[in-house]
Amino acid sequence: MKITAVKIDGKRHLASYRDGKLALLDDFHINASSVADLSREDLARIDEINQFKNYKFSYDSIIDQKSTLLCIGLNYKSHVSEHTGGKIPETPMVFSKSNNAFAGNESVVETGSGMNVDYEGELCVMIGSKARNVEEKDALKHVLGYFIGNDVSSRLLQYRTSQFYLGKSFDGFYPNGPYIAIDEIKDPHNLKIQTRVNGDLRQDSNTSYMIFSINRLISYISRYMTLRPGDCISTGTPAGVIMGMAPERQKWLGNGDRVEVQIEGLGKLASTFK
Amino acid sequence: MKITAVKIDGKRHLASYRDGKLALLDDFHINASSVADLSREDLARIDEINQFKNYKFSYDSIIDQKSTLLCIGLNYKSHVSEHTGGKIPETPMVFSKSNNAFAGNESVVETGSGMNVDYEGELCVMIGSKARNVEEKDALKHVLGYFIGNDVSSRLLQYRTSQFYLGKSFDGFYPNGPYIAIDEIKDPHNLKIQTRVNGDLRQDSNTSYMIFSINRLISYISRYMTLRPGDCISTGTPAGVIMGMAPERQKWLGNGDRVEVQIEGLGKLASTFK
Repeated sequence: MKITAVKIDGKRHLASYRDGKLALLDDFHINASSVADLSREDLARIDEINQFKNYKFSYDSIIDQKSTLLCIGLNYKSHVSEHTGGKIPETPMVFSKSNNAFAGNESVVETGSGMNVDYEGELCVMIGSKARNVEEKDALKHVLGYFIGNDVSSRLLQYRTSQFYLGKSFDGFYPNGPYIAIDEIKDPHNLKIQTRVNGDLRQDSNTSYMIFSINRLISYISRYMTLRPGDCISTGTPAGVIMGMAPERQKWLGNGDRVEVQIEGLGKLASTFK
Repeated sequence: MKITAVKIDGKRHLASYRDGKLALLDDFHINASSVADLSREDLARIDEINQFKNYKFSYDSIIDQKSTLLCIGLNYKSHVSEHTGGKIPETPMVFSKSNNAFAGNESVVETGSGMNVDYEGELCVMIGSKARNVEEKDALKHVLGYFIGNDVSSRLLQYRTSQFYLGKSFDGFYPNGPYIAIDEIKDPHNLKIQTRVNGDLRQDSNTSYMIFSINRLISYISRYMTLRPGDCISTGTPAGVIMGMAPERQKWLGNGDRVEVQIEGLGKLASTFK
């Protein structure tokens, strides 16, 4: 089942999603604004919905304001090469993005002026049940579902100090969606992941190339902090970002550029940069 | 007026606070769980409350789960010296802590084993109104109030990778309180700040020694991201942390150590480390 968050006349709704059509959960007396607040019973009922309608809607962020977004740096060998020249990290690098960065599919991202804005297509995992000191073998039991995120980054601000946070937290810098797949993804470590800019293929990899698996990330992070339902881990980006290109080829995002991140089984996340 | 957050029989309440006594806002039909949700009218009514009672309560975090906590690294010259050997930063270093780190006054902080846990006494600022592209001269108009925070840090995890986040985000690693002062602090840039460990004075400075003023921090951050009501900026710590001591003198927190951070006009934040 696929669940999405939408805005209709300015109001946020969760909806079951099929082929671009929606079944608003409110209409089935399931009133939640966070995907992670849906109970097991709610999910069972949503699974049985088979009336989908066309609505005039805009997508909203899958991850919501109450949740924490953790991001993993340098989690694909190919990206490590373009970033640091090849030293594979021994432990995951964890940072975060602020909640004002959350935006839905088809959002417009303001890049500001001279901020050197770049894309990072990523597989994002939403936690479904409290995880603390979880073993690797049990980690995926704590996952509610998977969706696409774009860890948009101002390379100027990201590297102005040692801490990435501000360069990653501009308003709208984590577009995500179009939906979260609850039970479709049998193996999250074997999904094709691609990013295109104005149709031009830039990132072309597979989640099988992650250095730290999702099991390992959840287990590692949960040793130090409690992961709560709704918290998300954006699992890092493969090679092919603008930052990794030769300086004479670097053309930062803006001026109406359209970035599309596609992950097998999770649809396509599109954003326009201006 | 001073407002605090408490738990009574497991339930969170906001309360007006005077000399250790409380007036629960619920009793005055002011029902909010976030300080930032209080309207101007609510604040005016709270200001008139003069019935305070004794309750059996525990303190809860002033900053709540919906809010974002931004922290400033290296914002006192004296701390820069002990940390990096003296290079004064040209722009603020901004990072964040996760919401699971929030805890109240008199909380018990679990340090884990061998994590090299350190204190950082700090002045924390809560934003009261949306701030985006704010000029320095107007910045303090966006402040709701001030309180004390302790930016507890596992030095082991903080420096395991380049990103501080995980070492700053263990459960309970941002004790704060005991209350937020709404209108008492006339000049936030001239407050004595002290930290004691088991009575031993370790940090002894004044907020006048900040490198980047609160005006400048709010103005700078708001150029890149929208600060929303309830978001907080922890403005950095002065010299005197354990990390800055000679290795043979470094005795990390644990074993019942009691840390007290005191800031002029903001009371005393106490935590026990085990």
